[in-house]
Amino acid sequence: MRNVYHDELSGLIDTLVEMTQLAESAMTRATTALLDADRELAENVISADRRIDDLQRDLEERAVGVLARQSPVATDLRVVVTALRMSSSLERMGDLARHVAKLARLRYPDSVVPAELRATVLEMGQVAERIVAKAGSVIATRDVQLAAEMEVDDDRMDALHRQVFEQLLSHTWNHPTEVAVDLTLCSRYYERFADHAVSVAKSVLFLVTGSRDEDVAAQRI
Amino acid sequence: MRNVYHDELSGLIDTLVEMTQLAESAMTRATTALLDADRELAENVISADRRIDDLQRDLEERAVGVLARQSPVATDLRVVVTALRMSSSLERMGDLARHVAKLARLRYPDSVVPAELRATVLEMGQVAERIVAKAGSVIATRDVQLAAEMEVDDDRMDALHRQVFEQLLSHTWNHPTEVAVDLTLCSRYYERFADHAVSVAKSVLFLVTGSRDEDVAAQRI
Repeated sequence: MRNVYHDELSGLIDTLVEMTQLAESAMTRATTALLDADRELAENVISADRRIDDLQRDLEERAVGVLARQSPVATDLRVVVTALRMSSSLERMGDLARHVAKLARLRYPDSVVPAELRATVLEMGQVAERIVAKAGSVIATRDVQLAAEMEVDDDRMDALHRQVFEQLLSHTWNHPTEVAVDLTLCSRYYERFADHAVSVAKSVLFLVTGSRDEDVAAQRI
Repeated sequence: MRNVYHDELSGLIDTLVEMTQLAESAMTRATTALLDADRELAENVISADRRIDDLQRDLEERAVGVLARQSPVATDLRVVVTALRMSSSLERMGDLARHVAKLARLRYPDSVVPAELRATVLEMGQVAERIVAKAGSVIATRDVQLAAEMEVDDDRMDALHRQVFEQLLSHTWNHPTEVAVDLTLCSRYYERFADHAVSVAKSVLFLVTGSRDEDVAAQRI
């Protein structure tokens, strides 16, 4: 019985790690679709999001099953409750990648991103890719040091987000309002994606250390 | 023992209802602060958000306590797990009201909202106010009919959200890019606020009927 129980708990962790991999793949492909105005790739990201949603639903059912059958206490109980919360964040990260892909599809065959912002958006995609990859490692290994490193990535994402606004509001900006609207939303999707990745890592930190870092909530813009 | 247990469960529900009231009050005041460029009111909304955050944290601790001590099963277990999920949505709704208030503060003494969009933003505030009020009633009463009505409010919010974009992209739009950026974000905050309210109501529906409505996720833009 104990073995089945611990298999169930580690199965929840495995699913969370799988969700980070899917979210990473989704955001990476969404960024490429956005920058290359690749409609097929955008469609692919949009339809693949269902897989993350299904995993979340499945995880939730299994978590409730563990709670009902095993009545875990102490750390095990925290693991299950935290897994529920993390799965919501990861599901939401999938949604945000889908939103980026939808923008790419909406403007096809035009590109959403004008030349002067390509490097910024490209880097937002890269930061998103590595922050969610780190979130996956933190879930799998409970590496507190790596979780702390993610703050640096999140700061970088916030800086890039501000950089987009600075460009949009600079006197050299000469694109239609539509482009500004698209980029405002797009930039916010990346920024929220990183926030969710950090919140996943903070959940792991809380499991390991028992303390919450208030700074994370404060960093949200 | 049973009585303490049921008091604890109904205490979770009471806290959720209180959170809806705080979120309602926050978004209503944030809308006023935005439309009247009232910095003091904006500050008030921003500082009051901590109360919702504290309630959510407290609810989570109590929910984990109930799970650990009482090992609820069946419907009671679903109530606790669902309360955790709903509290996250409500906490996030408080954040979104705070974001609206922050926009008002950022542009003070200017108003974020130009004359031609005042009526639209005012109505977004009203829809937000009534959809969260209904979410509170649905939590308290498990009124399935009222939960269904919220879809109408959410559809209205989506229509208003589109209306904002139509204005921003119309050929008569003649404001600086900054105004378009602010309104894009602002409109998205209201739209997400309504989404979260609907997701709260859907959680209650799931508790009552045991079935999930797939349409809700599909409606997210």
